[in-house]
Amino acid sequence: MATSMTTSPQTHLLHQTHNSFLKTPTTFTPTISLRTTTTFKPISIQCAATTQPQTHTHDGPPQAQSHSSDRVFNFAAGPATLPENVLRRAQSELYNWRGSGMSVMEMSHRGKEFLSIIQKAESDLRTLLEIPTEYSVLFLQGGATTQFAAVPLNICKSDDAVDHIVTGSWSDKAFKEAQKYCKPNVIWSGKSEKYTKIPSFDDLKQNPEARFLHICANETIHGVEFKNYPTPKNQNGILVADMSSNFCSKPVDVSKFGLIYAGAQKNVGPSGVTIVIVRNDLIGNAQGLTPVMLDYKIHAENNSLYNTPPCYGIYMCGLVFEDLLEQGGLVEVEKKNRKKAEILYQAIDESNGFFRCPVEKSVRSFMNVPFTLEKSELEGEFIKEAAKENMVQLKGHRSVGGMRASIYNAMPLAGVEKLVAFMKDFQAKHA
Amino acid sequence: MATSMTTSPQTHLLHQTHNSFLKTPTTFTPTISLRTTTTFKPISIQCAATTQPQTHTHDGPPQAQSHSSDRVFNFAAGPATLPENVLRRAQSELYNWRGSGMSVMEMSHRGKEFLSIIQKAESDLRTLLEIPTEYSVLFLQGGATTQFAAVPLNICKSDDAVDHIVTGSWSDKAFKEAQKYCKPNVIWSGKSEKYTKIPSFDDLKQNPEARFLHICANETIHGVEFKNYPTPKNQNGILVADMSSNFCSKPVDVSKFGLIYAGAQKNVGPSGVTIVIVRNDLIGNAQGLTPVMLDYKIHAENNSLYNTPPCYGIYMCGLVFEDLLEQGGLVEVEKKNRKKAEILYQAIDESNGFFRCPVEKSVRSFMNVPFTLEKSELEGEFIKEAAKENMVQLKGHRSVGGMRASIYNAMPLAGVEKLVAFMKDFQAKHA
Repeated sequence: MATSMTTSPQTHLLHQTHNSFLKTPTTFTPTISLRTTTTFKPISIQCAATTQPQTHTHDGPPQAQSHSSDRVFNFAAGPATLPENVLRRAQSELYNWRGSGMSVMEMSHRGKEFLSIIQKAESDLRTLLEIPTEYSVLFLQGGATTQFAAVPLNICKSDDAVDHIVTGSWSDKAFKEAQKYCKPNVIWSGKSEKYTKIPSFDDLKQNPEARFLHICANETIHGVEFKNYPTPKNQNGILVADMSSNFCSKPVDVSKFGLIYAGAQKNVGPSGVTIVIVRNDLIGNAQGLTPVMLDYKIHAENNSLYNTPPCYGIYMCGLVFEDLLEQGGLVEVEKKNRKKAEILYQAIDESNGFFRCPVEKSVRSFMNVPFTLEKSELEGEFIKEAAKENMVQLKGHRSVGGMRASIYNAMPLAGVEKLVAFMKDFQAKHA
Repeated sequence: MATSMTTSPQTHLLHQTHNSFLKTPTTFTPTISLRTTTTFKPISIQCAATTQPQTHTHDGPPQAQSHSSDRVFNFAAGPATLPENVLRRAQSELYNWRGSGMSVMEMSHRGKEFLSIIQKAESDLRTLLEIPTEYSVLFLQGGATTQFAAVPLNICKSDDAVDHIVTGSWSDKAFKEAQKYCKPNVIWSGKSEKYTKIPSFDDLKQNPEARFLHICANETIHGVEFKNYPTPKNQNGILVADMSSNFCSKPVDVSKFGLIYAGAQKNVGPSGVTIVIVRNDLIGNAQGLTPVMLDYKIHAENNSLYNTPPCYGIYMCGLVFEDLLEQGGLVEVEKKNRKKAEILYQAIDESNGFFRCPVEKSVRSFMNVPFTLEKSELEGEFIKEAAKENMVQLKGHRSVGGMRASIYNAMPLAGVEKLVAFMKDFQAKHA
């Protein structure tokens, strides 16, 4: 999910804040020379999509996962890099979607064209994650932060106890928002160890009455990731996971969860789409004060078309889901993600302390790789020099500092290899 | 705002609803022949953008407002037609935004590129609507339906009285949602007259204690539009308007309102962006149970970047705002909208009752033109024949029947002229 939420109150008066926008508008001047000569040699990636039977029904031939020379390698934590072939297809269809005479952005959400788009997106996502039929798939708005409220509002009564495991900033925010709507309790926090660990499940002091157990499956800022999942002690309780930053990065047994939610803008699409996968028996019990737009029942009964959904974002997610299926599904996607993560962590661990990753090895995220320099005064130069070689958004979140490389599904292996080569060069220069 | 919200409870069990998606997927087969020979002669439109000094800073030359032969005229109520030149620009920039090496969909919302986009969008919107500095402009998610809850949650205490004028389906929904969060009272309803009128302001029985007076400035489904605005009787009260379907279609004196909100997907962009314009002194008093994502203070303090905003939608709105400024601003835009509406209503009124518009003449919407056929059995044929001539989405909302032509900013005069010519032909054939 979004990684740089500001909670500290600003001291500006509101009108000053806004005036400052008008008085000092940011003018974007590209600072990245796209003709920079680099030592990077493109690496040919064997993409599953090129070796498997094609199932395309689109205009034009499918394109392999590739990286064009006019593109940067974008290591942003989200919104994040998208597959090039998906972008190319979106570009080719933007003005006139498949002979419909209109853009997807212009389509009535109740017309047959858009219905075909959202239904295929749902169907493909169900295939990818093998979602059981007794779960609803909802395409919503408002990001995971909206779900921090929607989950307790839909699943709990206001006096219900729930358990939270806090492994980083995002699970902490989920806990804090839940305090408005139920009785949450933090049963484990990694704060004192700077959020570098995932607890042993045996040691968890779960409340046997807890309506749900909430986790953040991957902490975008701190780079810790659950490799397996705890079971709620309450047999009638459920496991709830914020999967924003590792959604569709690997297979997941959905049946272990009562509810999964994820912002799309890491692995599966642009920002503005939030996906909720919820077991049907949990729907229909929202608290009386739940805003209608946060009530899962409304959206489930109306197939995410109660009001106008974020149509273009859903279309983009659909293109990404097709791409993931063409790559061979999430088993294949996970293999690629594992390989990318391994070579990056290996480069860090084999740098004799020049680079450091603070996260416990067994729970290091395959998606977000935070690291620091032993000589922290060189971090600014590292980020600047990397940008010169078209590797951007490597700065760590301001709450933790250092660097962070987000290497979601759409980051090509070549991008990670280039980063690793750069790290070695940088170390040789500064060791 | 979205025009076809379903509130009637569905009788399906949830898993049946979802299974039906999977068992009977809609396969989109284009049914509109784009090579259909029609009697339509393209009409040259003199666009302000072609006669005024250009202020472009983009790659490539600006394009005049035009209509390509491979496009349909899309009369959908929203999402709705967008300016062709905006779509062309978006298409050209989709893969690599202005040399940044990435798509707008991939940009960190905290990077300098996206900051330049959102700041320019806000600045241009402020110019268009001459928004006073003491108002904040927020780019949010969730549609106007989310604002139905957010407005009372932010502006009222739970026991505050508020007044609602109900002129159609949307203002009725706003009233119903407000019942959860304050004490709303309907001080006028057009229901008994099938929502064809706007009340005389003198006759309104306003509560002198009402915290706000809520109106829907244009009812998308029923086609009634406020031509001027009532003043709250409570000197400390404010006027609140849902302007979803006539936002930026004409100049508005923002200072008369405490709060204006609008879904973008009618006049200014794709779905998934909701714009709130709120006077700063109204911010900061949200009820304790307000979800953090519905709290205006959070978004105002963080310049709409508290969490990840709907970046691509905001970018598209920005392109539309530029286009509206290039047309000469909202005074010029209103002139065009007035002309389009006049020729369409004239065609209806001069049909000797063959076509009928139920709305009182003085409050007919310039945006959404509902009409029926005297011979209602011909309505299906009308819609079908129009579609053959590439005029689509003319079916009226299911709650009112008949036809509806939505003629937002981006509908070219040529589209309305073609519709009028078709109506005359149809009448000649069937009179």
